[in-house]
Amino acid sequence: MKSILTIGEILVEIMATDKGDGFLEPVSLVGPFPSGAPAIFIDQAARFGQPSAIISCVGDDDFGRVNLDRLRRDGVNVEGVRIDPEMATGSAFVRYRPDGSRSFVFNIKHSASGQLALDGAARAVLSRSDHLHVMGTALFSPRIIDIVLDCVVAIRARGGTISFDPNLRPEILNLPGLRQACETLFRRCDLYLPSGTELYLFTDAKEEKAAIAEILGHGVQAIVHKRGANGACYFDAAAHLQQPGFQVDEVDPTGAGDCFGATFVSCWLRDMPPSLCLAYAAASGALAVTRQGPMEGAASQGDLDAFLAAHSQKHPS
Amino acid sequence: MKSILTIGEILVEIMATDKGDGFLEPVSLVGPFPSGAPAIFIDQAARFGQPSAIISCVGDDDFGRVNLDRLRRDGVNVEGVRIDPEMATGSAFVRYRPDGSRSFVFNIKHSASGQLALDGAARAVLSRSDHLHVMGTALFSPRIIDIVLDCVVAIRARGGTISFDPNLRPEILNLPGLRQACETLFRRCDLYLPSGTELYLFTDAKEEKAAIAEILGHGVQAIVHKRGANGACYFDAAAHLQQPGFQVDEVDPTGAGDCFGATFVSCWLRDMPPSLCLAYAAASGALAVTRQGPMEGAASQGDLDAFLAAHSQKHPS
Repeated sequence: MKSILTIGEILVEIMATDKGDGFLEPVSLVGPFPSGAPAIFIDQAARFGQPSAIISCVGDDDFGRVNLDRLRRDGVNVEGVRIDPEMATGSAFVRYRPDGSRSFVFNIKHSASGQLALDGAARAVLSRSDHLHVMGTALFSPRIIDIVLDCVVAIRARGGTISFDPNLRPEILNLPGLRQACETLFRRCDLYLPSGTELYLFTDAKEEKAAIAEILGHGVQAIVHKRGANGACYFDAAAHLQQPGFQVDEVDPTGAGDCFGATFVSCWLRDMPPSLCLAYAAASGALAVTRQGPMEGAASQGDLDAFLAAHSQKHPS
Repeated sequence: MKSILTIGEILVEIMATDKGDGFLEPVSLVGPFPSGAPAIFIDQAARFGQPSAIISCVGDDDFGRVNLDRLRRDGVNVEGVRIDPEMATGSAFVRYRPDGSRSFVFNIKHSASGQLALDGAARAVLSRSDHLHVMGTALFSPRIIDIVLDCVVAIRARGGTISFDPNLRPEILNLPGLRQACETLFRRCDLYLPSGTELYLFTDAKEEKAAIAEILGHGVQAIVHKRGANGACYFDAAAHLQQPGFQVDEVDPTGAGDCFGATFVSCWLRDMPPSLCLAYAAASGALAVTRQGPMEGAASQGDLDAFLAAHSQKHPS
């Protein structure tokens, strides 16, 4: 089976238990939950049974250990994760507002996550990987952008494939170097997984059909357009498929897009037909939102088979 | 009234609500509480009515705002607090173990706290201060040690006084430059406030009476030896006073020593007799432990008068 590598931030997430705006007074919280978009992605890929590895960095503290313990337990190869003796493991505090939007307090850029490196252990992991998945969130420093682009070259050189999930809000594309790095990855990826309006990040076209044609014209093999609770669409040169979202009771949407992506990429690497990739991915995203915590809803292939069987009346795949 | 300046870390504290060991799984938490030993100290000094200021740095995030809001509300001059646009406000996660000891996850050294600077605003605050209080916790980088020593020189040059609370566990004195900086402060301070075995940090003597004589021989005007729930002792060339601890229901000991020190220093700057300084300080430490959160038990002089009146039968001052 083809192995997946990702690179980027490992964090703990601390969640407010009640809705409200921000963290300007003591509130009830729960955490630390293992988190970080690349970490959630790779944990779901491993849970699905794909050989999986991550290049990252954590601090020598309980927040690093809670992540490494979880990733190891779920089968992720963490040999490429540095333990920095100085810096603290990154963190994200999140509080849901009454309208469902989120307010955050982040410590990422100047956390241990910023100290990931392509050292000997990371290069060894890279040399054994068949596929690289990149999330835009990981591209938060020029140093890390360079490392990611080095890995793209290495994976390509050994005949591997690349997937790219911009996972960015348009307003943070203005960080120095980030937009250009995203555009480079967009142009080099085989599989492009934008969410919502990210579909138009690198297109002149302003409407879907023309944007899809433009993206496929750049050499992208397939596009998976994520639409949250509304499901997803798949586009390649030959096909246009639509996958409705599964109706579930949403407990916590954080991590759903990452789980969706991980399951899609895993299925795609197993050469499953795109309609089945979509169905598994949508089931994975749906299960993710039913659990509190970003990585808590990661599911095995068996879990997803059971979910799809239970939901087959409503949503034939 | 004489004004007090301190320098050092401003943090948020996030506390586990249940006892246990470390943060290796999601637990119930409460926070963010305003914290940081120098911040707790200066908040208590301001609450007691002393003109008070702090030189520090926070991030441009809710954790910085929750601290600045509290310090301003309680009357601390925060003009010397930088707001760093890049770094996150420092944090300390704390969980009490069943035996009463604490396990921590810190982010201080590489947080905004590390970016405090003697800029124009901080120099203006320094030039108006009569007394500098230094806590050993603040001396976590060579840059900050230099800033603190510059402030010592400036305060001395205008005839001001210095107090020093090592506030260190012996094992972290091995950080580069820290031991030497502490020793320099020990030798330059007027008022020395060690806790427990810190009394012997810079003495050859291994027992109390000889250690006191040795310390007073170095030019220290007075020693306040803090003994937690067991109270405190005061020593100068002429007097040896003992203050028993007040019996209160302990909710959270964090910050008690800082509040004790702030109230003692404030009283001392008002030329109160040492026995009254001790009584107010012990009341301040006692009230601090009755509230959850490091800075939540900071008390006004009126609060302390009421506390002392209520406890005067048991503990005549």
